[in-house]
Amino acid sequence: MGFHDKLNLAWATSGSMLCVGLDPDPAKIPAHLQGPDAIFRFCADIADATADLACAFKPQIAYFAAIGAEAQLERLCEHIRVNHPQVVLILDAKRGDIGPTAERYAHEAFVRYGADAVTVNPYLGTDSLEPFLAHTGKGVIVLCRTSNPGSGDLQMLTTDGQPMYQHVAHMATNQWSKMGEVALVVGATYPAELATVRGIVGDMPLLVPGVGAQGGDVVATVNAGATTHGTGMMINSSRAILYASSGEDFADAAREVALATRDEISQAVTSRK
Amino acid sequence: MGFHDKLNLAWATSGSMLCVGLDPDPAKIPAHLQGPDAIFRFCADIADATADLACAFKPQIAYFAAIGAEAQLERLCEHIRVNHPQVVLILDAKRGDIGPTAERYAHEAFVRYGADAVTVNPYLGTDSLEPFLAHTGKGVIVLCRTSNPGSGDLQMLTTDGQPMYQHVAHMATNQWSKMGEVALVVGATYPAELATVRGIVGDMPLLVPGVGAQGGDVVATVNAGATTHGTGMMINSSRAILYASSGEDFADAAREVALATRDEISQAVTSRK
Repeated sequence: MGFHDKLNLAWATSGSMLCVGLDPDPAKIPAHLQGPDAIFRFCADIADATADLACAFKPQIAYFAAIGAEAQLERLCEHIRVNHPQVVLILDAKRGDIGPTAERYAHEAFVRYGADAVTVNPYLGTDSLEPFLAHTGKGVIVLCRTSNPGSGDLQMLTTDGQPMYQHVAHMATNQWSKMGEVALVVGATYPAELATVRGIVGDMPLLVPGVGAQGGDVVATVNAGATTHGTGMMINSSRAILYASSGEDFADAAREVALATRDEISQAVTSRK
Repeated sequence: MGFHDKLNLAWATSGSMLCVGLDPDPAKIPAHLQGPDAIFRFCADIADATADLACAFKPQIAYFAAIGAEAQLERLCEHIRVNHPQVVLILDAKRGDIGPTAERYAHEAFVRYGADAVTVNPYLGTDSLEPFLAHTGKGVIVLCRTSNPGSGDLQMLTTDGQPMYQHVAHMATNQWSKMGEVALVVGATYPAELATVRGIVGDMPLLVPGVGAQGGDVVATVNAGATTHGTGMMINSSRAILYASSGEDFADAAREVALATRDEISQAVTSRK
């Protein structure tokens, strides 16, 4: 089953557009988990506590790579694939490089870690995305309008009468989606741009970071980004869920926040304008 | 000693603007090296054979990450730091992410691998570069105009009367260079744009990939990109040097190609227009 089909099934099965971001900061992991495989255990417990509430899990590779914990990321990805096969597994890596090197990054994401999808950066152009798109059935999630305050420095520069991020949305629709299974990253912190992107890309899935700790509003996000089917998004929350409690109850606390976020999303879908 | 000072010293000491790119493709490593640490041994032998001919070494992390060989990359970086401390060590990773995640990537490059500099992608804007720039004395090498055929898809889009890559060059000069030690990536495959960037950035160092296997011309590159001091560039060659021979003489063959490339660069500097 390809990325788009798996995601459609995940939305239908879970009734949720919540994506749980797995960004394990060693300094914030509960004390009772400390040990050589702490970040694996922490993330696996979070995944087990939230799997029925989420359409996707999104491990952020930087948190593993910074401390030499790739083996724990491999275990985590395998844990998710085996125990929660219905949940889409996104490797958040934001890779981007020229052809032969991009092919190695695609191998890292899709073969080594067995991800269903990977985030990539479009700055190097179409030929830098092709090695990812060539992996049949895998998802290629391209940065479009990111959630950070400085994202407009390049993404909002106007070219041919429209901002850069809209060019990326058009290229995704008109070119890249004909070469593979594509989605876009659009931050919840910019709901007006999210609505514009939805208008450009039709039903293309959108990965939407920025709710929770980054301050994006769930209702505004759903109104701007949901498709007419009431789906179309993977709305990511990381820190608000992961660090809901620093105690032994962290997984239960994470589940409570995930449940509340899923319900807030679902309520917004039901009452959307 | 900071990145810029170390690079100036490397240019002076080696008399070379050659950067040796370490992109170890397991399928191309000589048969007699095959074994569990083959890519470390291959790259370390190449480094030892070319260190006096190069101002910089540039391991490409994708080739290690694809096959789970981060430990070999750690060994390689340590080998270079210990045995060739005069050569600038660049981790080619092209990272780019929002603040807290970018900080983890900076930790990966500068602390885990001990690199002098790392390549980064500007698409997410200034605040995504700040965690890298905050590492005092480290080099932040920002993608500007990359060497691949499709690089113009975004980088050549015109905004406010100039192409995107020129905006990046202006931001590097006017903003980012005030926050840390900056360089730019400009491909040898686009000498006209290389000359334009040199005109914008003054004496800022440029990492110039694309000579050798990618077809960039050394004379055109030097004419376009050298400073008035006859330095200013790290001209990268990877595959032409690494795979000069597939036999037991691979290191000697690599040295011959590196020597010829260094001499071609030096000759072009001497006779430049």
